[in-house]
Amino acid sequence: MWPEETIARNSLVEIGRWVGSRGWCPATSGNLSCRTAEQYFLISVSGKDKGSLQVEDFLSVDFTGKPVNSDKRPSAETLLHAVIYSLHPEARFVVHTHSINGTVLSRHLGHGQIVFRDYELQKAFSGVETHDVELVVPLFANSQNMHTLAEEVRGVLRSDTRVPAFVLAGHGVYTWGKTVAEARRHAEAMEILMECEYQSRLLQALTPRV
Amino acid sequence: MWPEETIARNSLVEIGRWVGSRGWCPATSGNLSCRTAEQYFLISVSGKDKGSLQVEDFLSVDFTGKPVNSDKRPSAETLLHAVIYSLHPEARFVVHTHSINGTVLSRHLGHGQIVFRDYELQKAFSGVETHDVELVVPLFANSQNMHTLAEEVRGVLRSDTRVPAFVLAGHGVYTWGKTVAEARRHAEAMEILMECEYQSRLLQALTPRV
Amino acid sequence: MWPEETIARNSLVEIGRWVGSRGWCPATSGNLSCRTAEQYFLISVSGKDKGSLQVEDFLSVDFTGKPVNSDKRPSAETLLHAVIYSLHPEARFVVHTHSINGTVLSRHLGHGQIVFRDYELQKAFSGVETHDVELVVPLFANSQNMHTLAEEVRGVLRSDTRVPAFVLAGHGVYTWGKTVAEARRHAEAMEILMECEYQSRLLQALTPRV
Amino acid sequence: MWPEETIARNSLVEIGRWVGSRGWCPATSGNLSCRTAEQYFLISVSGKDKGSLQVEDFLSVDFTGKPVNSDKRPSAETLLHAVIYSLHPEARFVVHTHSINGTVLSRHLGHGQIVFRDYELQKAFSGVETHDVELVVPLFANSQNMHTLAEEVRGVLRSDTRVPAFVLAGHGVYTWGKTVAEARRHAEAMEILMECEYQSRLLQALTPRV
Repeated sequence: MWPEETIARNSLVEIGRWVGSRGWCPATSGNLSCRTAEQYFLISVSGKDKGSLQVEDFLSVDFTGKPVNSDKRPSAETLLHAVIYSLHPEARFVVHTHSINGTVLSRHLGHGQIVFRDYELQKAFSGVETHDVELVVPLFANSQNMHTLAEEVRGVLRSDTRVPAFVLAGHGVYTWGKTVAEARRHAEAMEILMECEYQSRLLQALTPRV
Repeated sequence: MWPEETIARNSLVEIGRWVGSRGWCPATSGNLSCRTAEQYFLISVSGKDKGSLQVEDFLSVDFTGKPVNSDKRPSAETLLHAVIYSLHPEARFVVHTHSINGTVLSRHLGHGQIVFRDYELQKAFSGVETHDVELVVPLFANSQNMHTLAEEVRGVLRSDTRVPAFVLAGHGVYTWGKTVAEARRHAEAMEILMECEYQSRLLQALTPRV
Repeated sequence: MWPEETIARNSLVEIGRWVGSRGWCPATSGNLSCRTAEQYFLISVSGKDKGSLQVEDFLSVDFTGKPVNSDKRPSAETLLHAVIYSLHPEARFVVHTHSINGTVLSRHLGHGQIVFRDYELQKAFSGVETHDVELVVPLFANSQNMHTLAEEVRGVLRSDTRVPAFVLAGHGVYTWGKTVAEARRHAEAMEILMECEYQSRLLQALTPRV
Repeated sequence: MWPEETIARNSLVEIGRWVGSRGWCPATSGNLSCRTAEQYFLISVSGKDKGSLQVEDFLSVDFTGKPVNSDKRPSAETLLHAVIYSLHPEARFVVHTHSINGTVLSRHLGHGQIVFRDYELQKAFSGVETHDVELVVPLFANSQNMHTLAEEVRGVLRSDTRVPAFVLAGHGVYTWGKTVAEARRHAEAMEILMECEYQSRLLQALTPRV
């Protein structure tokens, strides 16, 4: 049921190389995790370039964010990963990217939600069968108070477990998946949708459709 | 006359790596096919990353979209490939990309056609000898009903066999070619023209030419 | 004085890989040449992907564009290369790129000239010592009549031999250099300046400086 | 205390490859240095492509910009590196990039300062703990008079040693760090912030927030 730890670490290294190659975690931003037990998950250490993470650059933490048998410092946003795993028991990987388009659009909107509609790519999310529905992604004001932010996220995610992702304003995107492939697909879909939506808003503002 | 199956599969893998490296099939979107017989073609299986397809990730289907000797699931849009092959007997490869610029511009326009003019790159399409003509590409509203959509596409493509490509709104671009080289050239030309046209519309809206 | 032919062919292959990796010659567009004698130069054959050119993908032509001992078909724009070599006897390499930003801005402007000012990168052109001068690049309306276009270009380039490059509207950029390094530097500088100028015009139109 | 010279040269080559791969030093622009002694630092020679620098492409200079035991020509902007090292004794690496977004935004603004706010990425700078403060980066009008420019930069940097970077208009970004990792993180953060701010200004001008 739970991924074996060596496989988990290798999978996280692989996801890290991929987000690094896409430029989605600049300047050591972003973080990655893999749930390895009922009460624990592996998360990337603070302050390392995600594109060149090694298997030893992850530590085990519990759901309060406390390191388990490690003196490494986990990512500042460990509690947000814990919220996701506690509300989505089937999730095994959480990917937090921090791209330019994700930053710019979310910072501009500030808080509330981002609504995607009429994008075929919405179907990249498991359970979405058509472009012809609204894909609603919660957007939270950025905060350095992780306890407060985590509770805010928990409240929204608990109220609708179909929420496929969430965004922190001026900060980045959180997605998750049951497998490496699904986590990557969800992360890529959100990043591309954020870029599409940024470009769409420029075009729509300049040449409005009747 | 028909490509040998091993060569066809290897060619499709090669095209997949190329579209993957360009970022034109994000989050497992897009699909690829090669016609291998009068009534059959190989098409990519559903739900795989196009940039890392292997030779076994294609299955043979007939022109109604039915798998031949395979329990794999073909791409949802198999019927659109069948329409192209039935109307363009010389075509051997169909490439469906799903890029950001293709998505944004086509979603904005909604349906009808996209007209390219005064781009030297129009000459990348076989049979086009000058930039000084209109290159008209049909644009269809996106739909999850493939039978209806396929018939709509068939009607437009049958009415003018010089149509070099078509676009699904908010979804992506379909191109085809007699060889790998021609299919790649047509796919790349359409993607670049879509990006050019997106950027041109921003510039034209902000600093109109007299 | 003249580059040895094997070295010339290898240098052109190298430049081809570089422009290919930058995406500046999409869909087999663009062309490359190297002057190898008083009256001859090697030029890329028509219709090949510039990023994967091989040493045999070049043929020798004279200054009227006629192939020398070859039944290969030279690039359609061979005469424009001949004009450059005839007016710039020190030039050994000509690079014609065909990028998105070069296409969009030049197509928008149509004809006349593109003026760059206050870009440090202007100094990438040999002989330019400061950003604080206008760098004036001629812009020609695109044409499929190479004889007429070549004479038009010749007239403008002859009138001012300090002209560092020229642009065909909706088509692309021509630059040249005495060495591979200089030709690459000039080509890259023009491409980046075109992209800078495109972006600058959007920003200036939206948030004008007083 | 001071980096051993071989290690310093290898580190500079590595940083060069990285900025080259990102396209941040086009057409031989940009420069790199490493302080190797109380009164000396290694700096890249003038006029070479930063992405393919070799260990021999650096020379030692003193704080007046004079080469030490070398007839190579240092980068034109050597004095700006000297200013940084003299005011930031802990700095070991200076990275000057020259990206498109850095060029366009800074040229548009002209001089004064660039203020970043509400970007999580501000925390990439050592000592910045929150997005909820203004990150103020001085912006200087570009100049070819390095002595005047260096004194102007010195005045501003001396007045506030917390300044994390500075920008020359239409030219590029200067950042520094105590280690290769910190210098890269600061350089990347500034480049991404410049791109974010460019895009944010387009979006804000077109769809203002109330």
